[in-house]
Amino acid sequence: MTASARTGAVAILAGNGALPGLLAAALLSAGRTPVVFAIAGEADPAGLPAGAPVHVIRWGEIGRLFKLIQASGCREAIFVGGIARRPDFTSLRPDLGAMKLIPRIVQIMRNGDDRLLGEVAGIFAERGVELVGPLDVAPDLALGIGAAGGLRPSPEAMREITVARSAALAIGRLDIGQAAVALGARVVAVEAAEGTDMMLARVAELRRGGRLADSGGVLVKCLKPQQDRRLDLPTIGPDTAERAAAAGLSGVAADAGATLLAGRAETVAAFDRLGLFLWGLAAETAHG
Amino acid sequence: MTASARTGAVAILAGNGALPGLLAAALLSAGRTPVVFAIAGEADPAGLPAGAPVHVIRWGEIGRLFKLIQASGCREAIFVGGIARRPDFTSLRPDLGAMKLIPRIVQIMRNGDDRLLGEVAGIFAERGVELVGPLDVAPDLALGIGAAGGLRPSPEAMREITVARSAALAIGRLDIGQAAVALGARVVAVEAAEGTDMMLARVAELRRGGRLADSGGVLVKCLKPQQDRRLDLPTIGPDTAERAAAAGLSGVAADAGATLLAGRAETVAAFDRLGLFLWGLAAETAHG
Repeated sequence: MTASARTGAVAILAGNGALPGLLAAALLSAGRTPVVFAIAGEADPAGLPAGAPVHVIRWGEIGRLFKLIQASGCREAIFVGGIARRPDFTSLRPDLGAMKLIPRIVQIMRNGDDRLLGEVAGIFAERGVELVGPLDVAPDLALGIGAAGGLRPSPEAMREITVARSAALAIGRLDIGQAAVALGARVVAVEAAEGTDMMLARVAELRRGGRLADSGGVLVKCLKPQQDRRLDLPTIGPDTAERAAAAGLSGVAADAGATLLAGRAETVAAFDRLGLFLWGLAAETAHG
Repeated sequence: MTASARTGAVAILAGNGALPGLLAAALLSAGRTPVVFAIAGEADPAGLPAGAPVHVIRWGEIGRLFKLIQASGCREAIFVGGIARRPDFTSLRPDLGAMKLIPRIVQIMRNGDDRLLGEVAGIFAERGVELVGPLDVAPDLALGIGAAGGLRPSPEAMREITVARSAALAIGRLDIGQAAVALGARVVAVEAAEGTDMMLARVAELRRGGRLADSGGVLVKCLKPQQDRRLDLPTIGPDTAERAAAAGLSGVAADAGATLLAGRAETVAAFDRLGLFLWGLAAETAHG
């Protein structure tokens, strides 16, 4: 990464959720020119800031995507947002290059597959475009260290955070998931393919069934130790607060400096309103 | 364990499910005298073999339990079967010793808590009764090495078994759970407080939602590496075959010699009928 690459236009390949718009706004504030490539059927153009050019891109149009990226002078590209639907090729016949690239892009945006990310980054690099991560260009979107809102974890919650973090890191090392819930000294839920939302719904269900204590417990989200930070960063938003509250948790902790907030003010307001803490974990020291 | 302890009467503290009855029958076949203490509201007396004396025990009656164990000459006791309900103390006031012991027994029968098991075993030992495991006295209930039924894992399923086993051992080491599901090279579900049934239901749900490939994948159940084998052994029965089939899996693998079959003939028949393999894993060698 050269210093000169941190100026000028940057391509945002945008999936669903609030992050593409927040990232575009952060880039505009930083004096950059975001160019949004909104994936048809996923990205919500209404969430994008005025001032950022938007091109709607269908899955078959990889050739057009590269032409537009180069025509707009983008030397960097960022993949951000989720992919909820399977690519629809019925309306458009992709070219051969696209047929190879599309499933890889879907896979890395869905599951943060690091091996495929390297391949996709190589294909972008051949065209003079560097894949970077959202926090490389918009560090203000990151959760900071310590309490983000008005509440702090109790000593009991701090112990739960330690327990859940160990579990999240263990499954992260195996490339299984990024999140775990601990209640007391016990890990009660571990995230795999179902994702954090469905894991929290499970905790709520176990509570309703009387299989867990009525309240307390924490969610911890962590980077996989070996993961590429250009993709699949832990993300926390107002809906995280709502789902954690519905699961009866006392709060959420995540890696500071490596977790995206889907709207800082809205997220902190939701945690405060629901009486939950949001806690940014400092990086573990080698002896920690 | 002395050789002489492997004769005579043995107390079975029986929770729900088929295992208490199967264990009592296996003990009768081996010339032992099982004395069943059926936990009221949990154990099903209909599933018990004729020839085994049965005492229904309510949670408050720990004093009576010990008197009956000693009166029947039992020098060994086994906890087997699940606990689905919270103990009900409304109808009976437990004595002080029971108040301390009951929650520990519930916890170890539910969650296999090794630390509490040591305490409970100590309380039984003070009364001259040794807590042992079901496979210590009835090794024929165990899954053997290799294919239990007519089907064997494909080479692809063998690779999935390796992946799921690593995940199950990793969470086992953290005392989180015993089971994981792998599909291709990826772990898609990991068991924690929800248990294996709810984890398999989740895999079925992810499949229906198009979030996993349509079929294939394996369930692996493993002993936690540090676990006490007197409690909470992995258990596989006909319902495991049904739930695995509903989740679209190609089969199930578990530790040979350490996994209980809830009815060998019925279990193998269910796996065969549903077209799934049931595979007993040999212990891993130190260099494996």
